[in-house]
Amino acid sequence: MSNEILNYDKVAEASLAKAQRDGAETMWDRRAAQKTQCGFGEAGVCCRICSMGPCRVSPVPGKGAERGICGANADTIVARNFARMVAAGTSSHSDHARDIVHAMHHAKAEGPFKIRDEAKLRRIAKEWDVVDADTKETYALAHQMAELALEEFGKPFGTLRFLKRAPQARQDIWAREGIEPRAIDQEVVTLLHSTHMGCAADYESIFRRGMRTGMADGWGGSMIGTEFSDILYGTPTARASSSNLGVIDAEMVNIMVHGHDPNLSEMVVLAAKDPAMVELAKSVGAKGINIVGMCCTGNEMTMRHGIKIAGNFYQQEMCIITGAMEAVVVDVQCIFPTMPALAKTYHTRFVSTSPKAKIAGDIYIEFSEATALDNAREIVELAVKNFPNRDASKVEIPDIKQDTMVGYSVEAIIDHLNAVVNTQLEDGFGTVKPLTDVIYAGVIRGAAGIVGCNNPKQVHDYAHITVMEELIKRDVICVVTGCAAQAAAKAGLLTLEAKEKCGRGLLEVCERVNIPPVLHMGSCVDISRILHLVNLCADLKGIDPALLPVVGIAPEWMSEKAVAIANYVVGSGINTYLGIIPQVLGGSNFVKLMTEDVQEFIGAHFVFEKDPLVMVDKIMVDLEAKRVGLGI
Amino acid sequence: MSNEILNYDKVAEASLAKAQRDGAETMWDRRAAQKTQCGFGEAGVCCRICSMGPCRVSPVPGKGAERGICGANADTIVARNFARMVAAGTSSHSDHARDIVHAMHHAKAEGPFKIRDEAKLRRIAKEWDVVDADTKETYALAHQMAELALEEFGKPFGTLRFLKRAPQARQDIWAREGIEPRAIDQEVVTLLHSTHMGCAADYESIFRRGMRTGMADGWGGSMIGTEFSDILYGTPTARASSSNLGVIDAEMVNIMVHGHDPNLSEMVVLAAKDPAMVELAKSVGAKGINIVGMCCTGNEMTMRHGIKIAGNFYQQEMCIITGAMEAVVVDVQCIFPTMPALAKTYHTRFVSTSPKAKIAGDIYIEFSEATALDNAREIVELAVKNFPNRDASKVEIPDIKQDTMVGYSVEAIIDHLNAVVNTQLEDGFGTVKPLTDVIYAGVIRGAAGIVGCNNPKQVHDYAHITVMEELIKRDVICVVTGCAAQAAAKAGLLTLEAKEKCGRGLLEVCERVNIPPVLHMGSCVDISRILHLVNLCADLKGIDPALLPVVGIAPEWMSEKAVAIANYVVGSGINTYLGIIPQVLGGSNFVKLMTEDVQEFIGAHFVFEKDPLVMVDKIMVDLEAKRVGLGI
Repeated sequence: MSNEILNYDKVAEASLAKAQRDGAETMWDRRAAQKTQCGFGEAGVCCRICSMGPCRVSPVPGKGAERGICGANADTIVARNFARMVAAGTSSHSDHARDIVHAMHHAKAEGPFKIRDEAKLRRIAKEWDVVDADTKETYALAHQMAELALEEFGKPFGTLRFLKRAPQARQDIWAREGIEPRAIDQEVVTLLHSTHMGCAADYESIFRRGMRTGMADGWGGSMIGTEFSDILYGTPTARASSSNLGVIDAEMVNIMVHGHDPNLSEMVVLAAKDPAMVELAKSVGAKGINIVGMCCTGNEMTMRHGIKIAGNFYQQEMCIITGAMEAVVVDVQCIFPTMPALAKTYHTRFVSTSPKAKIAGDIYIEFSEATALDNAREIVELAVKNFPNRDASKVEIPDIKQDTMVGYSVEAIIDHLNAVVNTQLEDGFGTVKPLTDVIYAGVIRGAAGIVGCNNPKQVHDYAHITVMEELIKRDVICVVTGCAAQAAAKAGLLTLEAKEKCGRGLLEVCERVNIPPVLHMGSCVDISRILHLVNLCADLKGIDPALLPVVGIAPEWMSEKAVAIANYVVGSGINTYLGIIPQVLGGSNFVKLMTEDVQEFIGAHFVFEKDPLVMVDKIMVDLEAKRVGLGI
Repeated sequence: MSNEILNYDKVAEASLAKAQRDGAETMWDRRAAQKTQCGFGEAGVCCRICSMGPCRVSPVPGKGAERGICGANADTIVARNFARMVAAGTSSHSDHARDIVHAMHHAKAEGPFKIRDEAKLRRIAKEWDVVDADTKETYALAHQMAELALEEFGKPFGTLRFLKRAPQARQDIWAREGIEPRAIDQEVVTLLHSTHMGCAADYESIFRRGMRTGMADGWGGSMIGTEFSDILYGTPTARASSSNLGVIDAEMVNIMVHGHDPNLSEMVVLAAKDPAMVELAKSVGAKGINIVGMCCTGNEMTMRHGIKIAGNFYQQEMCIITGAMEAVVVDVQCIFPTMPALAKTYHTRFVSTSPKAKIAGDIYIEFSEATALDNAREIVELAVKNFPNRDASKVEIPDIKQDTMVGYSVEAIIDHLNAVVNTQLEDGFGTVKPLTDVIYAGVIRGAAGIVGCNNPKQVHDYAHITVMEELIKRDVICVVTGCAAQAAAKAGLLTLEAKEKCGRGLLEVCERVNIPPVLHMGSCVDISRILHLVNLCADLKGIDPALLPVVGIAPEWMSEKAVAIANYVVGSGINTYLGIIPQVLGGSNFVKLMTEDVQEFIGAHFVFEKDPLVMVDKIMVDLEAKRVGLGI
C-alpha cells in the first residue's frame, strides 16, 4: 500500500480507537454484526416484488428452485432487481436536480438565490432554442429556463434536450437501440411498471429499459443538476482547498454540511459569513465559524468556495468522534441513520432539513426555497450556541490534513487548455483541442473518470487510490468526482506536485497546462461534467465517443445512484469498470449481456474486477486497443 | 366451505391432475419448490437498497443485528421496503393510464380509437374547468383533454385535478397532513429518492410520503385510467356474462386476452368480429372465434362487452391446460413468465405485445396506438390459423361455468337507483341518495369494497367468497373489482338470485333496485369507481367519507398495486382489511403506525387479519361503530 493509504489508515486507526473508548458505534461495528451476508441477495436471485414471495432461486442451475412462484427465472429476477436500482438511483439524482431548478425559479436579483453565471444561463438558453436568449431580462430568462427544465421531468412528448450535446454518431445509436430517454420521471415510472410482477420477462428488454432510465439520469437529472447549480451558485474555477479530518479546527465552531444538494449548504455558508454570526461565535469563546464539507455537499462547496473537505462517506462518523463538531447539517442521501445517536454521544447537534430525508433522533429544521436563508441562520445559530457545550476532554482531532486543488469544471479545464493553444496552427481558444491533441499524439494514453462511493467490501480508499496512482503512472489522465475525488484529495493526488507520480507524458502535460494529473470535477451529479467533456472531445473529432481511449471506473461504489451512473456511462459508449461486483452474478445470461453482448449494440460494456491492480491492467489493454482502432 | 368453493375446487382438481398427466408445470409446483420462504423477507427486515448489503436485522429486538451497515433499524427498513411497493404499484396503474390517454390522443372519428362516451368527455372537461367544454368539437376537445391528463403525470406545479371530487372535509385533512399528491410521476420519483440509502430514516415520514404516492394512484393514475377508458370505450352498463373455465368452447377458435390495458383487448375483440376473420375461422373447421378474458383485461372486456370471464389470476395456467386455447394474448401485469413454456406443452401460441412487458419464449408482436387494429388482426389471424394444430386428445374443458351480471359503473348504479327515487319527497334523479337513504335507515348496515388478487398464501378464492357471503348475510352490500370480482362471478354471487344469500334488508334492496348483492365494478384501476361512489355518498351527506359505514377489503392480495391501493383507500378515510399480512411485521413501531396511530391523523387505518371469518366479525364491529358515530 502506498504512503497515502497508510496516511488515511492513521486517521481511521485513531478515530476508531477513540470511538471504542467513547462507547460510540460505527459502521464497522454494524458490519461485524451482520456476519455473513445473504448469498441469495448477493447473487441477486432473491425476489420480493410481490407478496406471493419472498422467492429465491438457485444461482446455480440444477440446484434448488429454478423459478419463483410466478415463474420468473434467475435472469429475470436479477434483471428486475438491477433495473430497480437504476430507477432509484436515477430518481435520487433527478429529484435533487428538481430542487435546484425550483430554487432557480425562486431566484431574484436581491437573493439569496441569484443568477451568478449569467453567461451560462444565456448559453444554455440558446442551446435550448429560447429565441430571446441574448436579450431577455436575466431573471425573466432564469424563470423561463427553470420552467423549461421542469418540463424535462414530466413532459408528455419528446426526448431530453441535452441529448443533442452528443455527437450525431452516438445519437444515431441511441435512436437505433431505442434508449433515448423521454421525460425523466416517466422513464423511472415505466421501469418500475416493467419490473412489476408479471410484466417484462425478457432480461435483455429489462436491461435496455434500465439503460434508458439511466440515460435519463446522466443526460437529464444529473446534467440539469450540474448546469443549473452552476448558473445559480457559479461555475467552479480552479482553487485551493484542504482535506481530511485535520481541517476541523479545535478553536472554532465547527459545522459539517453533509448530503448532496447545494441549496442548503450555500445558504449555510452565507449565513455563517454574516458578521453578526461571527461575532456571536466569538462571544461564546470561539475564534470563528469553520464550515467543513462531507460527501457530495462537501464537493459542491469546495468546488465553488474552496470549503475544506472533512472527508468522504466512511468518515462521516469519524468527524463526530473528534468531539469538536458543534453541528452536523444534512439534506439528502448517504447520511447514516445512526448519526443523531452518535451525535448524542458527544455534544454535537444533528440537524436534518429535508422533508425527503427526515432523520429521527435529534432536531428537524425544514429547509425550503421560500425561507432558505432564515432556515440556514437558525441552524448556524444553533451550532454557535452549542460551542460552550463542547467537552474538551473528548476532543481529539487527528493532525492530518492535505492541501488540494479543486474546481475543475469543463469551463475551468478549457480555460487551462487555452494557455497551451497552438496559435501557430490557428487553433481557436475555448475548445478541448489541446486535450485531444495530446491524446491523439500519444503523449497521454487516454483518460479515466474515477467516481463513486466507499464500500466496506473494499479496503477504504485503497481501490480508489491504487487505480489513480497506477493510471497516472501509465500516462492516463484522471478526472474524479464524489467520494473518489475526496479519496484523491486526501491522498495528495489533487496537487500540482502529484505530477511526480506520473509517467513522462502526463508529467509534461501537467506542467505545461499547470494542472494536477487528477482533476476534481465535482460531486456525483457532476459526472455529467465528465460526460460533457468526453462528448466535446468526440465532437471535435467528429466521432462516436465509444472510439475514444476513455474509461469510466467505480472502484468502491455502494449506492443505487452508482448503478444508474454506470448505465448512462456505458450507454454513452464508455466502458465502465466496477470494483464492487453488482448483485447480478446469479443470472449468467444477464452477466454475459452486461459484460459482453451489450458491446455489440451499444459499443461499450461493463467490466467487473475487484482487484484494482488487475483492473488497471485491463484498462490499459482497453485504452491501447482503442488507440489502435483510431490508428493513433 | 360453501358449494361455490367446492365448485371452484372441482375445476382446480381436474385441471391440476391433467397438468400432471401432460407434464405441465404450474404455480403450485413452483410454490412447492420454494419450500420455506425467507423469514427476514417475510418480516420485511431484509434490505437490499445499497450494495454495502444485503443486510438483515432481527425482527425480534435484542436478537441478532439491530441495524444494517448504514444504521437503518427495523422500522426504517420495513418502512422503506413498504414504500417501494407503493411506488411500484402506483407506477403500474399510472403507466397503464398513460397509455389510455395516449390512445385518446390518437382518437379520431373514423376509429379505431373513438370517443364512445362523449357526455363523459364533456362532463370531465367541465370538471377540469375547460371553458368551451360544451361546444368544442368532440375530437379537438378529446385531444385537449388528453393533453391535460398527460400533464397530471408530469406537471411541475400544483396537485391533482381529481382531488376536488372529495368532500371538503376530506380535502382539508389531506392539506393538513400534507398528503395531497402533486404530479403522479413526481410522487413516485421523490419516494424512491426518499427511500434511497441515507435519506429518510423516520418511519412515520416514509409512511406519509408513501401514502401520498398511493393517493397519486387512486386519485390520479387509476382514476384517469378508468374515466378515460370509459370515454374511449364506453362507460359500462349492466349486462349478462358467463364465467369460469367452462366458457372455453371446444368447437371454436379460443383466444384468451390477459393483462390489464383495454387498448389491446378492445382491438382484438374488434378484429375478431371482422366477418372475413370469422369466415377464416370457419374455413379451418371452427364454428367461430371465442374471446375469453383473464385477470383485469377480462374485467375490462366483460364490463363493456360482456366478454366471458375464463377466470382469475391463479387460473391463467389452467386455461392453457384445457388444450383448447389457440392463443394467449397479453399486455402488461400479472402474467406468469412461464406461460410461453406452458403454451408449448400444448399447441397454444403465446403473444406478448407490450414493450413494457416483453415476455420471452414465443412470439412478440408489438402493439402501438398508431397500428393498433393491424396488430390485433395479425394476432387474431395467428390464432385462427393455429386451430388445425390443436390436439384433440389433449382437450379437456371442465364443464363448469356460471352465469353472471357485470357492468356496474357508478353511472350504471345511479341509473338503477333512479328506479327507486322517492318522487314524493321531490328527490332528484341521478344521485346516490337512494343508496345513502337505505344505509342511513339501517336497511343495509354498510358497504364493503372487496378487491385484489389471488395468493397461494390463502386457499384460492376461499377468503374472497367467505368474506362476501358472510357480509351480504349481514346486510352489507358489496362492490367488487379485479380477481375478487371474478371469484364472485364464479361463485354465483354476481346474480340477481344471490339475493337469497342476503339478510332481509339487503334482499329487499336487491329486489327493489333489481341488482345483485355483489356488484362487479370492474378492473383494479376501477377501484377508483368505488372511491368515487363513496365520495359521492359522503358529499351528499356533507361529511368526511371516514364517517360512513364503509370498508375496503383485500382478502387475497399479492401485487405491489394492491399496496398502493391500500394506501389510497386508507388515505381516503376508509379502513382497509388485508387478508395477506404485508411484509412489515419486523417493524413493530411501523405496524403500530399502520394499524393504530394513522387513525389519529388520517381518520382510517389498516387491519391485518388472515382468517376471513374473524375479519368479517371485525368489520361488523367497525361498521356498527361508524353507525353509532353518525347517530343512525
